[in-house]
Amino acid sequence: MVSSYIVPPNIDLKNLSSEVKGVNQIGEEVTANVTLEKPLTVFLNSAEIVTSMTIGDYPELLALGFLFNQRIIKEKREVKSVDFDEELNVVVVRTVDETPYEINSKKKIRTSGCALGTVFGNLMDEIDEIKLSPREIKVSILYDLARKINTTPSLYLETGAIHGTVLCDYSGPLVYMEDVGRHNAVDKISGWMLNNDVVGEDKILYTTGRLTSEMVIKAAIMGIPILLSRSGFTAWGVEIAKSVGLTMVGRLRGERFLCLTGSKNLIFDEK
Amino acid sequence: MVSSYIVPPNIDLKNLSSEVKGVNQIGEEVTANVTLEKPLTVFLNSAEIVTSMTIGDYPELLALGFLFNQRIIKEKREVKSVDFDEELNVVVVRTVDETPYEINSKKKIRTSGCALGTVFGNLMDEIDEIKLSPREIKVSILYDLARKINTTPSLYLETGAIHGTVLCDYSGPLVYMEDVGRHNAVDKISGWMLNNDVVGEDKILYTTGRLTSEMVIKAAIMGIPILLSRSGFTAWGVEIAKSVGLTMVGRLRGERFLCLTGSKNLIFDEK
Repeated sequence: MVSSYIVPPNIDLKNLSSEVKGVNQIGEEVTANVTLEKPLTVFLNSAEIVTSMTIGDYPELLALGFLFNQRIIKEKREVKSVDFDEELNVVVVRTVDETPYEINSKKKIRTSGCALGTVFGNLMDEIDEIKLSPREIKVSILYDLARKINTTPSLYLETGAIHGTVLCDYSGPLVYMEDVGRHNAVDKISGWMLNNDVVGEDKILYTTGRLTSEMVIKAAIMGIPILLSRSGFTAWGVEIAKSVGLTMVGRLRGERFLCLTGSKNLIFDEK
Repeated sequence: MVSSYIVPPNIDLKNLSSEVKGVNQIGEEVTANVTLEKPLTVFLNSAEIVTSMTIGDYPELLALGFLFNQRIIKEKREVKSVDFDEELNVVVVRTVDETPYEINSKKKIRTSGCALGTVFGNLMDEIDEIKLSPREIKVSILYDLARKINTTPSLYLETGAIHGTVLCDYSGPLVYMEDVGRHNAVDKISGWMLNNDVVGEDKILYTTGRLTSEMVIKAAIMGIPILLSRSGFTAWGVEIAKSVGLTMVGRLRGERFLCLTGSKNLIFDEK
């Protein structure tokens, strides 16, 4: 068994899935475990920020990581408290001072219908200033991480219909989060890093999802210089990865992959 | 070749993907086609509704289908014009009369930061009133549709990192849309149906994505009684599908599947 995990996948089938009766291809009655999915609303002080669909584990980390990855919160010390109300499915993150986001959104409230649209615009400006320090990595370590992750018991293996994101270092996977939304899984990792004062510069991020612009932006904001995925790339994801200096390896399956940015950081120690 | 398509996949690699140089697992230089992904902002009259990341084909259908699937527009005759500005990446949908959405959002502008959150809340009320008329379907037709779809040349086969949604009838696939966001692919189908006065009651919808609550809600609003996917289910998706009377078949791969709602409508003509 894989032993390097600080936070292994949360395979709490009782709370994160439900049993549903159905039939299979020959009409036999079967019972399937299906992933739960419920709305979680994040408040920043008194401002409602976003409602996401989530499996519902680690709501505090999800809220914290979302706000960090949107650059609404930049440091742990800005946060006064994080409270989850299970009945209302609401997380309230309170900060020591009013945030620029709240001040801006008061100004912008008549022009923008959607907070996320506004925030996304601001993010692109911030991304322009990120330059990740390059880290080399052996191809054998890529394979080792992928193999360890793929053989770890997870909700994905139990229920399907879920995305995983795994924070790793060079010795193995450390924190494995899963969610119905792939952005939630990476935001939970980010919340965990913020909470535990863990920096990204010597880490590797693995995602089961596609390497889209949003995934690349999140990795860059988390300060992680190497991003891996079993899935493919989008053009804008590649462009942003190039501009921030992210090494990005996709279509990593078995001992095959495609590296579209930062290939100079790969050490080909395997054939 | 498959001949039933009215709108086959748009494999316009020149406009929907870009060529990126990279390296493979043994360090060889390779060129990969990666999917484009760009922001598209939808305006309803003078109200900014949402910004989505999309591959960028059929922007007018995407805008129209999004507004229809959110129940902001309910009939084609409400629409006066749909204009796409390629330079700004903006679609403006103009209606004959002011919509309830615009009237409500004026009232709600101080309480809700995110239009989508609000709209989503309203959608759940509408969903409660939908009851789809059941349609029977032979298992052999499920296999036939899946086989035809999977062997159709598509962007997915060329670039990966993309989701597909296919409108079918009992004879075969009709309209095949793809997008980086799986919701966009289904919204483009919806826009096409609205534009061409096509009803959902005798159709089947196939998606490569997971059967989440949002996907089920969209199928129900489009009036389509049968939803198929190669991927898995979420619990809330199953619950909504049951309540609206949707027949839902997931994990449809080869000659295997799982039917979690509406199995009484399946005719097991294959073993």
